[in-house]
Amino acid sequence: MTRKVPLANYLFTRLRQLGVGAVHGVPGDYTLRALDYLQPAGLRWIGSCNELNAGYAADGYARVKGISALFTTYGVGELSAINAVMGSYAEFSPVVHIVGTAPRNAYTSRAMVHHSLGDGNLRIFADMYAKVTAAQANLIDVKTAPETIDQTLEQCMVQSRPVYIELPSDMVAAQVPEVRLSVPLNVSPPKNTDEAEDHVVSAVLSRIYASKKPYILVDGLVAPDGIVDEVSEFARITGFPTFALTFGGGIIRGDLENFHGVHAGKFGTLDFTSYTDTADLALLFGPLLSDTNTLGWSTVPKKEITISLRRTAIELGPSSHNLHIKSFMQKLITRLDSSRLSARKPTPSLSSPRDLIKNLPEIDPSAAIDQDTFYLRISSFFRAGDIVICANGTPLVGGRDFVLPVGARLINSSIFLSVGHMLPAAQGIALVQCELAESGHTPGRTIFFEGDGSFQASAQELSTIIRYRLDVTIFIINNEGYAYERHIHGMDEEYNDVAPWRYLEAPSFFGAPTNGSYKIELHDVKTWGELDKVIKNAGFQDGKGLKMVNVRMGRDDVSTNFKAALQLAGRQLMADAK
Amino acid sequence: MTRKVPLANYLFTRLRQLGVGAVHGVPGDYTLRALDYLQPAGLRWIGSCNELNAGYAADGYARVKGISALFTTYGVGELSAINAVMGSYAEFSPVVHIVGTAPRNAYTSRAMVHHSLGDGNLRIFADMYAKVTAAQANLIDVKTAPETIDQTLEQCMVQSRPVYIELPSDMVAAQVPEVRLSVPLNVSPPKNTDEAEDHVVSAVLSRIYASKKPYILVDGLVAPDGIVDEVSEFARITGFPTFALTFGGGIIRGDLENFHGVHAGKFGTLDFTSYTDTADLALLFGPLLSDTNTLGWSTVPKKEITISLRRTAIELGPSSHNLHIKSFMQKLITRLDSSRLSARKPTPSLSSPRDLIKNLPEIDPSAAIDQDTFYLRISSFFRAGDIVICANGTPLVGGRDFVLPVGARLINSSIFLSVGHMLPAAQGIALVQCELAESGHTPGRTIFFEGDGSFQASAQELSTIIRYRLDVTIFIINNEGYAYERHIHGMDEEYNDVAPWRYLEAPSFFGAPTNGSYKIELHDVKTWGELDKVIKNAGFQDGKGLKMVNVRMGRDDVSTNFKAALQLAGRQLMADAK
Repeated sequence: MTRKVPLANYLFTRLRQLGVGAVHGVPGDYTLRALDYLQPAGLRWIGSCNELNAGYAADGYARVKGISALFTTYGVGELSAINAVMGSYAEFSPVVHIVGTAPRNAYTSRAMVHHSLGDGNLRIFADMYAKVTAAQANLIDVKTAPETIDQTLEQCMVQSRPVYIELPSDMVAAQVPEVRLSVPLNVSPPKNTDEAEDHVVSAVLSRIYASKKPYILVDGLVAPDGIVDEVSEFARITGFPTFALTFGGGIIRGDLENFHGVHAGKFGTLDFTSYTDTADLALLFGPLLSDTNTLGWSTVPKKEITISLRRTAIELGPSSHNLHIKSFMQKLITRLDSSRLSARKPTPSLSSPRDLIKNLPEIDPSAAIDQDTFYLRISSFFRAGDIVICANGTPLVGGRDFVLPVGARLINSSIFLSVGHMLPAAQGIALVQCELAESGHTPGRTIFFEGDGSFQASAQELSTIIRYRLDVTIFIINNEGYAYERHIHGMDEEYNDVAPWRYLEAPSFFGAPTNGSYKIELHDVKTWGELDKVIKNAGFQDGKGLKMVNVRMGRDDVSTNFKAALQLAGRQLMADAK
Repeated sequence: MTRKVPLANYLFTRLRQLGVGAVHGVPGDYTLRALDYLQPAGLRWIGSCNELNAGYAADGYARVKGISALFTTYGVGELSAINAVMGSYAEFSPVVHIVGTAPRNAYTSRAMVHHSLGDGNLRIFADMYAKVTAAQANLIDVKTAPETIDQTLEQCMVQSRPVYIELPSDMVAAQVPEVRLSVPLNVSPPKNTDEAEDHVVSAVLSRIYASKKPYILVDGLVAPDGIVDEVSEFARITGFPTFALTFGGGIIRGDLENFHGVHAGKFGTLDFTSYTDTADLALLFGPLLSDTNTLGWSTVPKKEITISLRRTAIELGPSSHNLHIKSFMQKLITRLDSSRLSARKPTPSLSSPRDLIKNLPEIDPSAAIDQDTFYLRISSFFRAGDIVICANGTPLVGGRDFVLPVGARLINSSIFLSVGHMLPAAQGIALVQCELAESGHTPGRTIFFEGDGSFQASAQELSTIIRYRLDVTIFIINNEGYAYERHIHGMDEEYNDVAPWRYLEAPSFFGAPTNGSYKIELHDVKTWGELDKVIKNAGFQDGKGLKMVNVRMGRDDVSTNFKAALQLAGRQLMADAK
């Protein structure tokens, strides 16, 4: 006799097999029954305060763990979360969005059920999601459901993008054969043929050997493309001058002498354009070339000198080759003969944030903290294992100057840049760190830089961090409003202000325990001396519990070089209609 | 020479003409320039903490003011807000959603601009909005833009549903002729022909005169349909037993002897089914017949005895007549000959919440506050002019027992029931009250009942209430979780818990001034005596500033009669797949 399991159990077991440890969401009547199947499948439930935030949290979890799950009710729940899932789609974050839908007969009877528009069309939500997910499944048929689940989850992993699974409330306990569960899902990338791979490896190597002035440009999709180590290794063995785009800031090992930090064109703290503008080869890894990520495309190398390497395609100028990147990179590294590199020598004209940090003047303990050097100076705080998260706004820009130690990682957003994204994402990431610790690994810290404006957008997820006793260190960059936007337009306009919250009261308001069972540490700093004292304290450095530092900076302060970029954006904004 | 004005000025002037006093939103780079045109057009900017909440706030404002405006950036901003706008669409709330989009050339060049999916398709957002708004406009052509704006705003008012207007950042200052602004928009409903109207009035009157056992059933769309006074008057002159559905709870004047409160079938605090089940006529005004609003459709009268009256259609059983309701109702009332009403006599068998209140036992000051009588007892606190808002969950259900004085109003949700909707909505409503006061009217109070679970979803908008110094009285129904859902499924499951916030610390955390410029009053109550002392205090009754009462109730406490409905929903949820 065929052994059977409830459909929800099947789905959750598959998620567990893929490495999901926890499911984020908000309960709704059509999800309640399924929630009972989480724990038996080895999954933990993380209740967020709202669905949008749950979506952001799942996104953060996925960026680090390589997969995550979001579970919402249909209609109101999934539509509250759609912006987060779109962001995951835009930035290749593999989130499985499970939607607990009304029972199947509500769809056929076109009933006026709650959480819908009342017009009988309950498919409208799934229609929207079809545009922002890599694959969709509606588990209405018990016979096909297991296979459908498997295919959908495989697409999530293979494409590294969100997928959408509808679980009708009357299908939760439907019995399905257990047998497929013993066969692992096939999430390995398609295999390249030797012939095609050899051909392109040779072509790329020829270009590399011929180059007199090459550089490597690394962007953030290297992480979902699964070639972080390969790209660092390639940078190491070539010794080519290596830069990152903003989104790719944390990919390359921070100890590589030829890694010069983030290339932000004329608007960066360091300006590398005299080198890049005259280069004859740019090896571009994991590109996501949005305007913000490339400073208005000013840092995108010219097509004719570019070899672009992404998940499923290698492009040499106009010719594109459909190859999976992982085995390609491994072969490229193996075959590379470093003696044939004409350009393998240090490039003393190129500086790096490491040099900037070395040359910083001694701090004046009584001086105000400024954006220009904060991100450089705080770099000494980072350690191996840390995941450093930069929210949108000034931290995203400032974080370009971070110098990360080997084994630390940077998380930021490249194109979607949704306000409020990163606090819930930090919760998701802290949960991954917690799971790592529980599985015996040495946990790193979760260190989060967030502006006051974006903190306000999703502040309640601090309570989720507290509720689940996660370890997060938060630096609130408090400049009384949307500083980034002030410089684009409306420097003194009220619309760029935010309410004057008392940020350090957050843990108490959000229910932090007072019995010592969870460590809370709060600091208010406005001078270098105050900041220095905090970050040099061993109790603070341990990263345990919730640590919040309210870093007060000047209202209009943004990094000097970046100010010009914001002013340019402002001028473009004022360009009149033709 | 034709006088011209900037396009943004044109749009905002039109909004002002329609009665909009304030625009809710979150600034984004593509909206900044347009924001400069708000104040000159006489509009106030209200900066919400995130776009979803801004959408909910605009929804609340529109429900009371009859129109409102939401202004977000495109992509991330509008998609964060889409769930709120869908709710407005489902429940006929006229919100003008203006979206500040990228300059027009970004659309034609398919640029990889920030806040988009990165695939060059920037139309995806508008495509989604086309499904959830009554009309859409994209202001890309300076020649047609004014007329397009006018038509779109007219549709918002005429259909009482959200509309969607894209304002490209490079069109903000485009010069358009001012001349149309001197012609008011045509927002009056289409005029019925006398012949058609007379015919249906006669038919309805015949049914009324012939009825031996009629009743009136009032639902919440009576408000957007603009016939609140007419329906109350109709109820008064017929003297027919009158009930409301949950969504229509605050429509009928509370002093009408023949108004018996909310009809919730077998699950109501009062059970009117022995009357309604044997009636021969049901006059159903403003119906929005969702499962929740009608207790699983159990309170929907049988089609053959129903006359249904909505904005644009009168239905007598199977025959439907396209007539606008306003002039129809006025004619119906004028023509009604009350001497011909066979059923015009009091119906002593029918009780009402008024009677329940009269017969409540004296409070035991030391007894715990319970859901069964809280909503009855708190009714004595309400006054003319109050707008009483019930969030989803236990307040929505409990609020069925409210007895509202004449001139008070109830706001709740009927079908969309999004968690977190009502706190931002209360902010929007308090703003309308504030505008009424500024224009010389005696302001009513804004009184808001909210469960702890939904408070957490959108709590930061309390800071918006404080930031703009609005007057709101909030009763937090604190029962440590999603009580409503506990009774459906998972009574003791962790997924129905929420984090134990210290709710009364909210004003301080959210930046309330301490200099006395804005009154804050905080109370923690768990017994009838404590509650009584608070609500009988004149300083509390004034409704000024922010007043918060943390009302602690039993974790599992829901109203006795409604418990059966939740249990039934739970059993339905457990129905297995066939």
